[in-house]
Amino acid sequence: MELLEKLNWRYATKAMNGEKVPQEKIDNILEAANLAPTSSGLQPFEIMIVTNAELKEKIKAVAWNQSVVTDCSHLLVFAAWDTYTEERINRMFDLVNEERGFKNEGWENYRQQLLNSYPKRDAETNFQHASKQAYIAFSQALTAAAFEGVDATPMEGFDPDVVDEILGLKEKGLRSCVLLPLGYRKPEEDWLVNLKKVRKPKEELITLFE
Amino acid sequence: MELLEKLNWRYATKAMNGEKVPQEKIDNILEAANLAPTSSGLQPFEIMIVTNAELKEKIKAVAWNQSVVTDCSHLLVFAAWDTYTEERINRMFDLVNEERGFKNEGWENYRQQLLNSYPKRDAETNFQHASKQAYIAFSQALTAAAFEGVDATPMEGFDPDVVDEILGLKEKGLRSCVLLPLGYRKPEEDWLVNLKKVRKPKEELITLFE
Repeated sequence: MELLEKLNWRYATKAMNGEKVPQEKIDNILEAANLAPTSSGLQPFEIMIVTNAELKEKIKAVAWNQSVVTDCSHLLVFAAWDTYTEERINRMFDLVNEERGFKNEGWENYRQQLLNSYPKRDAETNFQHASKQAYIAFSQALTAAAFEGVDATPMEGFDPDVVDEILGLKEKGLRSCVLLPLGYRKPEEDWLVNLKKVRKPKEELITLFE
Repeated sequence: MELLEKLNWRYATKAMNGEKVPQEKIDNILEAANLAPTSSGLQPFEIMIVTNAELKEKIKAVAWNQSVVTDCSHLLVFAAWDTYTEERINRMFDLVNEERGFKNEGWENYRQQLLNSYPKRDAETNFQHASKQAYIAFSQALTAAAFEGVDATPMEGFDPDVVDEILGLKEKGLRSCVLLPLGYRKPEEDWLVNLKKVRKPKEELITLFE
């Protein structure tokens, strides 16, 4: 399967060469992220695209000084909703009605169910839930990058509160949860590039209930 | 890009016809899940594969009686580690050393860093972190299913505690976090199959920092 080839090709790139990724490839990667399925279709996240050198430097300083943060072409910051609000839920349900051109009773009942439960849960629970949806999209972006021959580095090692401040996310009701620098590998400076990809043996991954 | 075609093809299938998915396709889907990148390479999750009809019925009863749970071919249950332990961290670092055939000081220091931090964090924080890694794999499995022409239903709507009991996950230090029934659509009973896939306009998804 072509997908498996691509997934074997990709690796967490540790050094990038600063080369720019063409816009068309970035667009496809974002399209893949946007196509990700999310709980109730709420898409409770946004993606910040940082190409500004100064901002990248600031983020690098709170991301273990990983060189890929500045040497990448585009730094994607996946930021999840800090909580679920009525307004946010209604926006997505309204959008579905607009796009599909009709209202449906079952769908409207489902909307009420979410409106009656999500907004009153504590914000942290909602943010954790929203983050997981962001991870589904993040994963699809990562796969799309591999299809485009673009290197990428999945990164959780950063201070999210400071990144939120740098990008003004708090005011937008967002919290950063994972970074994805996109660019091109610099093999001569990358300790990981030639090392074997190691994964669990299948018998430690899978249990059958037949 | 072929990936985008596949991502547009897939949808959260609401009715399946009971047809069996060939083992080779299941193997490829699991391989994609296993290739997912995870934080520090820990792969802190396992996948339960339920084909047993009785177990499917029990799970369906705590999953809003969604028919796909029983009408699917294989029900995947992604279950994350309930916490990070020294043993689990060491197992994965040892595996990397075995597979790569050498020990490396930087890598060993990194192991110590994780051993000194993860196991003493509270279990819920660790489980939430592990779940996110499971979601990355879940997303790759979903994409792989699309490449195999296999329908799938991302499902969070179930009672995880009861599913953990049904599958005996607690004793294994696992907690179910997301379900993925795999099978083939039954279009005549599926209300969603012909509806437009709705996603946010790009300007609501993306912010540029240039």
